[in-house]
Formats: sequence, structure tokens, C-alpha cells
Amino acid sequence: MFPLSSLLHFPHRSHHRRHHHHHLLLLFLRRTLSTTAAASTIPQSPPPSTPLQIPLSFPTYLICSSNTSLGKTLVSTGLAASFLLSTHSHSLLPPKKFLYLKPVQTGFPSDSDSRFVFSKLNSLAGRRTIRRSFLSFDHVLKASRSAVGDVPSEECEPGMLDLGSYSECRVVGEEGGEASELVCKTLFAWRDAVSPHLAAEREKGTVEDSTVLENLQRCLERGFEGWDNSNVFSVIETAGGVASPGPSGTLQCDLYRPLRLPAILVGDGRLGGISGTISAYETLKLRGYDVVAVVVEDHGLVNEVPLASYLRKRVPVLVLPSIPQDLSDDLMEWFEDACGVFDSLFKIMLSAYSERIKRLHDMPKKAGEVFWWPFTQHKLVSEEAVTVIDSRCGENFAVFKVNNDVMTQQFDACASWWTQGPDATLQTELAREMGYSAARFGHVMFPENVYEPALECAELLLEGVGKGWASRTYFSDNGSTAIEIALKMAFRKFTFDHGTLSDLLNDDSTQRHSQLMVLALNGSYHGDTLGAMEAQAPSSYTGFLQQPWYTGRGLFLDPPTVFLCNNKWNLSLPEGLQSHSLKYGNTWFSSRSEVFHLSRDKSDIAEIYSSHIAHTLAQYPESKGIIGALILEPVIQAAGGMHMVDPLFQRVLVNHCRNENIPVIFDEVFTGFWRLGTETAAELLNCVPDIACFAKLMTGGTIPLAATLATSAVFDSFLGDSKLKALLHGHSYSAHAMGCTAAAKSIKWFKDPQLNRNIASGGRLLRELWDEKMVGEISSHPAVQRVVVLGTLCALELRAEGSNAGYGSLYASSLLKQLREDGIFTRPLGNVIYFMCGPCTSPEVCRQLLIKLRRRLDEFSQIR
Amino acid sequence: MFPLSSLLHFPHRSHHRRHHHHHLLLLFLRRTLSTTAAASTIPQSPPPSTPLQIPLSFPTYLICSSNTSLGKTLVSTGLAASFLLSTHSHSLLPPKKFLYLKPVQTGFPSDSDSRFVFSKLNSLAGRRTIRRSFLSFDHVLKASRSAVGDVPSEECEPGMLDLGSYSECRVVGEEGGEASELVCKTLFAWRDAVSPHLAAEREKGTVEDSTVLENLQRCLERGFEGWDNSNVFSVIETAGGVASPGPSGTLQCDLYRPLRLPAILVGDGRLGGISGTISAYETLKLRGYDVVAVVVEDHGLVNEVPLASYLRKRVPVLVLPSIPQDLSDDLMEWFEDACGVFDSLFKIMLSAYSERIKRLHDMPKKAGEVFWWPFTQHKLVSEEAVTVIDSRCGENFAVFKVNNDVMTQQFDACASWWTQGPDATLQTELAREMGYSAARFGHVMFPENVYEPALECAELLLEGVGKGWASRTYFSDNGSTAIEIALKMAFRKFTFDHGTLSDLLNDDSTQRHSQLMVLALNGSYHGDTLGAMEAQAPSSYTGFLQQPWYTGRGLFLDPPTVFLCNNKWNLSLPEGLQSHSLKYGNTWFSSRSEVFHLSRDKSDIAEIYSSHIAHTLAQYPESKGIIGALILEPVIQAAGGMHMVDPLFQRVLVNHCRNENIPVIFDEVFTGFWRLGTETAAELLNCVPDIACFAKLMTGGTIPLAATLATSAVFDSFLGDSKLKALLHGHSYSAHAMGCTAAAKSIKWFKDPQLNRNIASGGRLLRELWDEKMVGEISSHPAVQRVVVLGTLCALELRAEGSNAGYGSLYASSLLKQLREDGIFTRPLGNVIYFMCGPCTSPEVCRQLLIKLRRRLDEFSQIR
Repeated sequence: MFPLSSLLHFPHRSHHRRHHHHHLLLLFLRRTLSTTAAASTIPQSPPPSTPLQIPLSFPTYLICSSNTSLGKTLVSTGLAASFLLSTHSHSLLPPKKFLYLKPVQTGFPSDSDSRFVFSKLNSLAGRRTIRRSFLSFDHVLKASRSAVGDVPSEECEPGMLDLGSYSECRVVGEEGGEASELVCKTLFAWRDAVSPHLAAEREKGTVEDSTVLENLQRCLERGFEGWDNSNVFSVIETAGGVASPGPSGTLQCDLYRPLRLPAILVGDGRLGGISGTISAYETLKLRGYDVVAVVVEDHGLVNEVPLASYLRKRVPVLVLPSIPQDLSDDLMEWFEDACGVFDSLFKIMLSAYSERIKRLHDMPKKAGEVFWWPFTQHKLVSEEAVTVIDSRCGENFAVFKVNNDVMTQQFDACASWWTQGPDATLQTELAREMGYSAARFGHVMFPENVYEPALECAELLLEGVGKGWASRTYFSDNGSTAIEIALKMAFRKFTFDHGTLSDLLNDDSTQRHSQLMVLALNGSYHGDTLGAMEAQAPSSYTGFLQQPWYTGRGLFLDPPTVFLCNNKWNLSLPEGLQSHSLKYGNTWFSSRSEVFHLSRDKSDIAEIYSSHIAHTLAQYPESKGIIGALILEPVIQAAGGMHMVDPLFQRVLVNHCRNENIPVIFDEVFTGFWRLGTETAAELLNCVPDIACFAKLMTGGTIPLAATLATSAVFDSFLGDSKLKALLHGHSYSAHAMGCTAAAKSIKWFKDPQLNRNIASGGRLLRELWDEKMVGEISSHPAVQRVVVLGTLCALELRAEGSNAGYGSLYASSLLKQLREDGIFTRPLGNVIYFMCGPCTSPEVCRQLLIKLRRRLDEFSQIR
Repeated sequence: MFPLSSLLHFPHRSHHRRHHHHHLLLLFLRRTLSTTAAASTIPQSPPPSTPLQIPLSFPTYLICSSNTSLGKTLVSTGLAASFLLSTHSHSLLPPKKFLYLKPVQTGFPSDSDSRFVFSKLNSLAGRRTIRRSFLSFDHVLKASRSAVGDVPSEECEPGMLDLGSYSECRVVGEEGGEASELVCKTLFAWRDAVSPHLAAEREKGTVEDSTVLENLQRCLERGFEGWDNSNVFSVIETAGGVASPGPSGTLQCDLYRPLRLPAILVGDGRLGGISGTISAYETLKLRGYDVVAVVVEDHGLVNEVPLASYLRKRVPVLVLPSIPQDLSDDLMEWFEDACGVFDSLFKIMLSAYSERIKRLHDMPKKAGEVFWWPFTQHKLVSEEAVTVIDSRCGENFAVFKVNNDVMTQQFDACASWWTQGPDATLQTELAREMGYSAARFGHVMFPENVYEPALECAELLLEGVGKGWASRTYFSDNGSTAIEIALKMAFRKFTFDHGTLSDLLNDDSTQRHSQLMVLALNGSYHGDTLGAMEAQAPSSYTGFLQQPWYTGRGLFLDPPTVFLCNNKWNLSLPEGLQSHSLKYGNTWFSSRSEVFHLSRDKSDIAEIYSSHIAHTLAQYPESKGIIGALILEPVIQAAGGMHMVDPLFQRVLVNHCRNENIPVIFDEVFTGFWRLGTETAAELLNCVPDIACFAKLMTGGTIPLAATLATSAVFDSFLGDSKLKALLHGHSYSAHAMGCTAAAKSIKWFKDPQLNRNIASGGRLLRELWDEKMVGEISSHPAVQRVVVLGTLCALELRAEGSNAGYGSLYASSLLKQLREDGIFTRPLGNVIYFMCGPCTSPEVCRQLLIKLRRRLDEFSQIR
């Protein structure tokens, strides 16, 4: 049975106490089946529909340790004492409140850290001369059946019990008045004194990570209701070591990661303890935590010296006096001895907290003063409009709200501007792998060298996105540079094929330079450097003010596009083709799959496309130049406004150029690596290029790296006896080790069905991420002009006219603001807004996004 | 006194031994003051003049642990037994040799892990039925005086004693024949059973890291002389945990890092051990180690399950049976029980070794098949010419030599193509910080957002390289993109200043586009994208074959240059100025400082420069275009052939443009961040730009990131009510968190005199890194045309004519090959070769490079 007595604690009376005080003790015990029990059987927990929010208006610290039994609870107790029992505290000062949270407790009820803090504080309050009264509580919220009823694990029903038990104690101070408070809470407790994941499994009391976090959030939000934030303090004590598993098996450093609370690391002062402490510190750093101080017990080995040297004074190291080994010692003397250390630690924590909050508050103003953001009219960005991003965990930002000091989760729906891919698990893996790569290689120059990450990455690219056609990988830094390289490759290949190369080799004249042109599509976008810009049609981006040297070296065709409207997939033909369509048939499809179906190759519309292309090219005057390359973004033109080009048109175009011996470049910078539901968009087109460019998602979206893949025929056109015939384009960081490492890891991860649940059985397709029915409804919404949904992308164009339409429009801003309130961070392309997730994002998360979008669209229509 | 008895061990006779065998025991003890004792008093050890070389022709593993006393020595013993005492080994098979190395032993002589391995193996050999004879040795090479003589530490003389002690034992097998061998060696031993750094300090027996490594190298090289590599195996057992300090105080994971041996991690099977094991694994990863297997003792807590889950099957986890706690247990039964586990572990290690070696051997061929290296004529690169880089540690590559299976250190004298900066310490710090940043942020989109690394980096840039003039930071990915952005900024500013902006705002015509031109210098290089290329003069890089769209939109001036020849700094004037110089005075300087001295502003030559520039500009016909920007690389034109431009000429040019209201761009992509001995080369010129570009060394040279800094006046010319007036150039990874983190860390580190010994007292200059006398001698060498030495750069042009000169020349290749034999990795610019070090590289390292260069230059001249 549950040992009631163990919850009853009287503060010790010490010999120097001179004041009367009352003890008030309450205890009750409730047992009901917790509601979390049912939820815990679902293997993948649904995401919370309200985003996680953590108040930062008062200090909250995570107390971590490099191992079990190093004194985390002693540190928590000492901090509570420093805060609550300071001799300076008198009745003229306001009362204080300290919240001690122990989310996960094993060995319960014989072990209870919250009870320990509660009981020691009472004893200390009794010993010390306190002027203000002191009230304390110890709550235990939920426990496994074994922990509560002492039933053998095998006989337990699964689930956790609501255990509304608490103890309360009051110590009356010299001056009376309103009492300071200590609230200790154990959130979840298990009986066996083993690792939480093992206890939870044995006692059939699993608790999902999201449940732990929601409960923590609730405790922090409600813990200080009615209190002045300047008089409150909170610690969350973890169980075991930093990387000990929590109840679900998730390592605790990962479990608590979405909160990213600052941490105190209780290190190890024993022999071997330097190593354990440093390693634990590195584990925290590799999860993005900030460690504010390290505390070690004195074992006479001066471990603090090498620790301080390792930490290079960035982080203070404090030394606690030796802890008495005698179990009967009540530690009162020890706490008095350690009092000065705890006071210092407390001051460090308070000042680190203040500095952090001050910095977070200052950031929007400073950003506005020192940054020059790309694609941003600074005059239109007020200080209030600047988003302070404290961290990211998987697909979510942690955004600091300056107006109410809250850290709130926002889904990164701009997928960090089209790059972001990992979920929280892959993010941690990538962080470790990139740390490894930096430590192993730093950066290593590439030409004529080989090193593992570059080789592995090149091999994976050729076996993956280049499979069946590419034989060479040319690395560069970003999409723009990859495109410039692709153009150089294509033009050389064209020149080579068309027999003019040998003439040109000895020809220094600049006569022919302007003659090579690209064939491209209107609405395309291939990057921001001049060479990439020259390959795109005139647009908002290419005016003299933006690109003083732009001329537009191409023949640009108007492409037919496809979109969803009123729950139907439509084909929209450009002007030159419209008359044909009226004659030849339907301009809509029964489904999106029909759009991509190869049977369309034999349709009338294929014939129309083919003759239109042939006709247009035939009419292009040689005086304007020679078409030396075809360049296109397969299926989706992203920066151009998220337009889906009819894949049939692109396929016909590619085949035409192939017949004419014009090299074909696919710009897969945006579309590559599952963005559109397949590893490459070329698979959707069902044809292959001679050259293709990849970047963005290639590294999982964490770090810049690009690759231009090419066929062996393209490569061969650069072979020769002279270095001057080689491709003399490169960047210092070509194939940099960290980028290649991230790419190799991400490429493998995204397509592994063991790691990415979205990979369907065949391995070539992501499952449908955006709920079809809901997307259909949104496409029928009166505020919506068109929807494009494919793979990780769901975009819509708001109905707008005049200056409300187009890239410069601010039409969507009120809608975007509302979505941010819902925890969705988006950035528009004028009146086009889009949601983008990662290749591993759960469809349930996407469904939540659509629900919120639909609701906000309704509001948006009503306002207009 | 030294307890001799403790070195004598007889193998136990077990009940099932049926064979006669002899025991041969030898012991002698020598005491002489070690030669390392003297060396150990020098605070910074000189680099070894011969590069570190580790044989990889047989397996060598590092045995590491997450804490002390987890069983590293048991694992070493078990592996030795698996290898040497296999029952399958008979006299027809060749004998085997196992080398056990314990570099650092404390608690000696009562504790000696090598003696333990030695004695247990003898006992096991005695117990088991061995067919082949077995010979074993235990050596102890050096020990502190306290450890040897048992004198109190206070009375000790500093230094380590040569302790040529060894034990030997022979067990005769059933079949006789040549014996298998076990050689156990303790390299350095101390008496106190504490952390090595503490024992070394207390016992006045410090050993430098380089001494440990050299001794290890020697043991590995000599350990198997005369043995067939396929029959040998070696382990190096570390002391304590992975991050326990070694004798010098360097953490062991850092101490052994230059070898980067594959590791076996002995984890912790106890409560809390999951965390410690994972953290230790992460510490090893954060040093670039590969962990091949994790071994834990069974404590009934199934720690292997969460460990295997964390490791995702990348690394196998093996479980050892519980180790008897009884100290009198001879562990014979335990070893028999654990035999199967050790056999598996051994197989894993053998197969990981084979895979690694196979991969290293395959890499050159595979690289030649899948890579397309930039700036490389593939036809000229044979498989043999490909360098296999296994890792980097600070300034050194670890290069795998395919022909003799040796891993050898090579100084990265191309400084990884002009980026590399950190020494080994900073590399580790950067790896951890970048891992942290990836874990905290991954990547976060930049526009209208603020996050700590971007803000800190921008602030550091403006307070540092932009101090006194810049007010805005525009981030991009590399030097080329930073230059394209700079050009856009400059042209907008020019247009704005010259009153044509409002005309152009409503002017869509393309008439004026080609009119804006840059003023630039011949020999300059600003990057590889088209826009950057357009700003440079025609060169090998700009021909039609390379840049089909290149036109060269600039007025390009011939600059006067400065160089060292015959130990004298000369001024070389371009053709147009030569007649003047004859009239007006000296063309050489008394010292390099004189070149930079501001008093030259008042010299005749300043006047000549000024009027030459004014005259040339006045003559530039408006039909060719309007000069809208000045762009130059301050002081050194790098890609153009490592030319030092007369700083006076550049200053005069800048002042001229400033007077004409022409925006000035400094391309500091190469020169920035201490490359030339000052944080910016602008400091050497003593004038400031309106816009400056930084990249390469900005992140410490580890990861691509660029910044274009600008004045507020430049920024203001983009302000307006329309987004279309903003600077619409950006890349998805603008201000990516990892790059900004690396930059912030490196910027602070390089200029901190506490961390970078090369920072002279004033903090604005690096101390002279290249020995002046030796550089002077090299400049007088008959093979040398000219030398340019400044900051971290030492370049020289070899005297060459015709096709031997210029970028396409292969003239230097034999010299470079020789330098690689000396452990120096260089890459030429045609007949120009250069050494580049990092801002923290010790002058002694540079001196060693020069010594080797001078020797090889002598040989080079003799061949010619």
C-alpha cells in the first residue's frame, strides 16, 4: 500500500530557533484513471492544436546533471533556500514564490525529490531566523499504479493514476505578514528506481513527450498567477543524466528541447568526473542549450580547474562543499556551509536571466539598425514587425513575443524560405553529424582531392537524383552559382556539338559573345546573380534599379499552367494557345494524377504544344542569337508565384530540344529532394535533363551547398590538354565537408522508410501530406483564386485586383498576422501565400495548418 | 622503493592444461634522466620537423571509455585473447602479434594496465589449450620519480625517468613452432591514482602532447617490424574517460586527435550509464572520431536497448557479462564467459578496419569518376595525383598514402584555398559551436527576422572590419555573391547621387543599361559569377570558352606593384608610368614598412599617380559608358597571381573617386580577417570604402558565408515606399545561423590576445610570422623572380619564360611534389607558389616551412 507516512514531514527544530510557529499539514489522496492513459496507446501523438507557450516573464531553469546522484536536488534545494530564506527578506519587501518542478520521478514513493526539497526547506526555515512567514507545498500529480498501490507490475492495468496528493507546511516568521511560498510538484512518478523509460515500460505507465511538455507549460503558466513576476523563480529538475531516457524513451535532453530553457549543469567532482562533466556539457550544447553555470561537489581533486579551463571562463564553475556520506545526516550544517555558493549561483542565474530578456527585448531595434535584409523594403518594416526567433526545433520556431515575454511555438510554414526539411529528430542528428564533420575536416580544399563527405555526397547524388543520366557532380555554394555553372556547361556542350568549338579556341574576338541565348519560360526564376538573371524573362526583379546590367539573354515562352479551383484541376493556356484549346477539348482534369499521366503524350493538346513550340522557335531570328540551352524549373515555378506548369508542355519542350541537340538544364534548386513529393521533379515530368541544379533542401535545409549534375557527354566537352579548356569556375568552399555531410545524411534519411514515415512503400513517393478534402474546400473559398498543392507545398493565390495583386502587394498581410497568432509563420509572395512543410512532416500537422487557414480565410473574407 | 615483485607474474596453471611449457622471465631496471625532462619546461613545444606518420597497414584502435573503471583494460585483454589465443590458431598458420599500448598510466606501479593485460593473457594461455607457442612482454618506458622511487613529490626533481623495465613470459604450445607475441607497453607512468594532469603536476613529471604522440608513432612503427601486416593488431588504451585530461592538461580526446584512430567506446551499464555513454559518444564525435562499437557491462538494466536505439544501428552495442565484484577473483571464468562477445567485437573491428582501408584505397579512382573538380583539367589528373584527405587537425591535413598505407600529416599551405584559419583548439571550439547552432537553429529565414548569431555577427562586423564607416550588413553566401550585391549597391548609390534615379524609376527602356561601368585594376579578380566577372579585366578566366556572356564592363587601369627581390622591396611601374619614375626617383624601398608609410602621400610619386589617374579618366569616352563604381582588392591581388599593388596608388585612386562622388568598393574577400596581418587590408591602405565585401576567413574558413558592408548613405538610396525599390537580391541561406555562429566565434577569437598569441600588444597587428632573414634569402635565390610576404601569406614567383609562365603553366609541379614529401601541401597559381597559414599559426611552424622550401628550391635549381 501507499506509505502515507512518507508524505508527512515536520521541519526539524534546531537549537537556535527562537520563534513560535505553526505547522499546518494536509494530505489527501485521490485515485482516478488518468485521461492520459488512453492517449498513451497511440504510437505517434497528435500535435497539440494550440502551440506550446512558455512564460519568460520570470526565471525558469533546467537543472541537469552528468550522472545520477550528483546533487541536482541539493542544488535545487539550495537555490530555493537562497531565494526564499534570505535573511534580508522582511515584511516590507514583497513575498516571494519558488516553484520546484520534478517532471519525472522514479523510485517513488520512497524517493521523492520534490518531497526532499519541501522537507529540507521547512527544516531550514525552522533553523534560520526568518522574518517573513513561509508556506510550502508538495504535490504529486500522477503516478503509475505500481507506485501508488504497490501492486506487482505484471498485474497492473496500463495507465497513470491521477494522484492529487499534497503536503503543506507553514513556518511563521518573526514579522508575520503575507508568506513567501515554495511549491514543489512531481508531475509523473513510477515505483522502480530505474531509468524512467524502463520504469514506465515495466509499470505500464507510459507518458508521451507532448504530455510532459503540456503539463510543464500548465504548471509554469498557473504557478505564479496573481504574483509579481519579479518575485518568482522556478526550476525544473531532470532525472538522471542529461541523456537519460525520459518515460517515452526520448532522451531527456531531446524531450525538453522545445522549451530550450537555460540550464545549470551539476557536474561530477570525483575521479573521472572531469570527463563526464565535459561530455554532458557537450551533449547539452549539441541540443542547442545554453548552460549558465556548472556546479561540482568538492572531492579534493580540484576538477573545477580543468573544467574552468575547458570552459574558457564562458561559464562559471562553482564548487560545493563535500556532501556528508552519512545517510542519517540531516544536511542542515552542509546547507549552511554551502549557503554562500548557492547565493552566488542564484545571483549568476538571476543576472543571466536579466541579460537574456534584455537582449531579447533589444533585438528588434538592433536588427533594424544593423541588418540590411534581402528582398525587404526597410521603410515598411516597423520594430514591432520584426520576429525574434530564439530557436527552432524541427519544423517549429520558438518566437519571443516582446509584448508579453512569452516564448511561443510557430510552425515555420515558409520552411525557412524553401530550404528547411528536418523534423526534430533529424535536426539533432544533423547537428551532431555537422559537429563531427567540422571537427574531422573543418574545411578542406576540393580540387584534385578526395575526402569522405564529398565522395559520399557525390555518389548519393548520382545514384539518386542523377540516376540514369548524370555521371558527374560539380559542387558550388547556392542555387545561383549552380545555375551559372550549368549555363557554362550547356553552352560549351552546344558549341562542341555544333562544331564551332575549334574555331573559337583560337578566336579572341568578342564578336560572338552575345549570340548564345537560352530558351526559357516566362515566370521562371533561376537565382539572383547576373548570369542566372540573364536566363530569366524580364520581371519585377530585373528592372534597371535592381539589375543595372540585365539584358535578358533568352527566348521566353509563355507556359500553360495547371491549378485547383472549385475543387477541380484546371488547365490555363497562354494567349497564343487559347484558340486551339477551344477547338480541341477539355481544359480541366478529373484529378491531379491525370495531369501527370503519360497517356496525355498521345492527346491533341500534346500535338498543339509541339507545333506551337516548333513554330515559335522557327520564327526566332538568328540576329537575336542562337538558342544554346533550354533551362526550366520542372513542374513548379516558385519565385514566379508558385505556378504549376503543365508537365506535358515541359516534356514536349524537352523532347523538342533533345531532337535539336540543344542541352537541357533542369533547375531543381527549389523542386529537388522531395519538395514536390518525389526526390526530383524530373520524375514527375518523366524525362531527364543533360544538366540539373540542386541546392536548398539538399542539405536538409540547414546549410548552403549546391550541386550541378551533368552527363558524361557534357563533361567530355571540357576535356583537353590545356587547363584553360577546363571549367574555370569555382568557389573556395566547393564541396565543403560540413555541407556534404549534411547532404549525405539528409539524402539518405529522407528516402529511408525506416526513418521517414512519409515514404510510401515503393519508396519513390511521399504520402499525400495535405488533406485532399480540405484542400478542395479551400480551393472553393470565395477569397481564393487558385490553389497549387503538391508534395510538401500548398500554395494559394488570393483573389485580388490592381495593386493588390502581384509581387509588390501587401494584400495578404492581415491574414498572415492572424496566422501568426495561430502559431503559423508564413511569408507571402505578394498575394500568393503558401505553406511548406518538410519531407518528414506528419500529415496530421499539415491538417492542423489547413484547419487554421480555413478559419482565417473566412475571417479574411468577412473583413474585405 | 620500487616494488620489483609487482612486475613478476606467472601464468596460472589451470586444471585442464595438459602440456609442458617453460617460463622465461627477465627483468631489468634502468634509471636515467629522460631527455624529455628538459624539453618539458618549454611552454609551447616546437613542432616536430618531421610530420607525424601513422602506419595503417594493420588495425590500430583507441580504447576509450565514458568514465574510469568501466572495463577498458578488460576489453583490451579480451581482444588480445581473441586474437592470440584462438583455438583455431595452429602451427601451419603464421604467428600473430598484438601490441597493447598504454600511453598514460597513473597509480603506478600498484596499478599497471599493461601488466594486467600481460598477466591475464599468460594466465589465459595457460588455461586454454594453445597449439602455437605464446611469448609476451610488458615494458614500462618512462615514469615519474615518485612512481619509480617512491620519493615524496615535494622532494622530486622535475622530469620523467627512463625506466627500461620489462617482463617477459613464454608459454609453449602443443605444436611448438614460432611463437605468437603479445607486447604490452606503458609509455608514461605516474604514482598518484588521480587524473594524469594532476599526477604530472604533483610529481613534476609533465609530458608534452607532441612527446606522447611521437612515442606512440615510434611504438606503432617499430612494433611490427619484420611482421606480416595481416597478422598484427594493436590497441591504444586511454586513461579515465574520453575527456579526462592527459598529462599536459589537454583533454585526451584532443591529445590523440591528430591520429584520429577509430575508437571502441566502453560504455556504462549502470544506472545513469545510458546518459554517460551517449555523452561520451558525442564528445568523440565532436572531435571527429569514428566509434566502431560500444561495449557495456551487463548490470541488468538493459542499457544496450536505448543505446542501440540512439545509435540507430550505425554502431553495434555489445554486452559483456557482469564482472565479478570479488577482488580475489582471477577473472578467468569471466573471460571464458565473455569470450564470444570479444570474438564478435574483434570481428567487427577487423571488418571495420578492412572496410576503411578498402575505401581509402578506392577513393582516388572513385573521385576521378564522379567528381568534376573546379579549375581542374581532368585529363591532366592521374589517379596517383589525387590526394586522399582523411581529416584535418588545425592547420594540418591527415593524408592517406595509398602506396604504403601510411597516414601522414601535411601542412595545408594552400590554407584550404584561402579560407582556413583555425588551429586545432579553435577547430574544436568551432565544431562544438556549429553543432550547437545547428541544434539551436538549424536554418532560420532571415528577412524581417532576428536571431542571435546573425545579430551578433552583424554587430561584430560593424564594430570590427566596418568600424568608422559601415552601418549595415548584407549577408550572402560567398565572395562572388557579395560582389554582385556590392555592385548593385554602388550603382544605385551612384544613380541616386547623380540625379538620374527619379528618371529611371519610370523608365522601362533598356537603353541605358549597358552604360554603367566599373573602374578597376588589371589583374584583379572578383569572383566567378557573371556579374563579378564583368567587373574584372579580360584574363585567362574570361575567354569565350569560359564566360560566353562576358564583355568586361569596366575601365581597367594597370597598377604599379611592389615586391621583394634580392632582399629589397622594389616598385614596379606599369608602362604608362615608367618614364615618370626615371625622372622622379627611387623605385625601391628601405623596408616593407616604408611601402605603407603615409609620408609617401607627399612624395612626387603620389603626384604622378594622381595626375595619371585624372588623365586616364578624363580620356575615357562617354560612349563607352559612365564610371559608376570603383572596385579593388586592397593591397594584394590574389587570384591574379599574388601581386602586391602599391598601396599609395590605391589610396590616391580611392581619394580621386571619392572626390568625383563615385562609390568605392573594397573586395576584401581574400584580404579580410588578418590574411594580410591586419583585420582588414583597408587599414594598410589607410582609407575606407563605401562598400566592402568579406567572405573566406570570416567564418574561420570552415563554412561559406559572405557579408557586404555599406555606409548608411548607400543604404538610404534603397529606401522608399515600394518594395520594388528595395534591394531584391538574396539567397535562401542569407545569414544562416551556423555561418554566423562560426563567424562570430572566429572574429572574436582571432583578435583576442588571450586566445591568439600572434596578436601583438596593440591588438591591431599580427606579429611577423615569416622569418624576415630567411624570406630575404629566398628572395635572392636564383630560381626566384619575386617574393610577396605579408601577414599570413608568403608567395613567390619562380623565374620562368614562355609557356612555363602564367596561370596555365605546370612549371612548379616537381617542386610541389617534393614539398608534399616534406609534409607541405601546396597548390600553385601557374609558376607562382605560395604558403598560407592561419592567423593563429606559430612563427616557428612558418620557419619550418621556409627551411623546407629553401632546401627544395636548391634542388629545383639544380635540376633545371
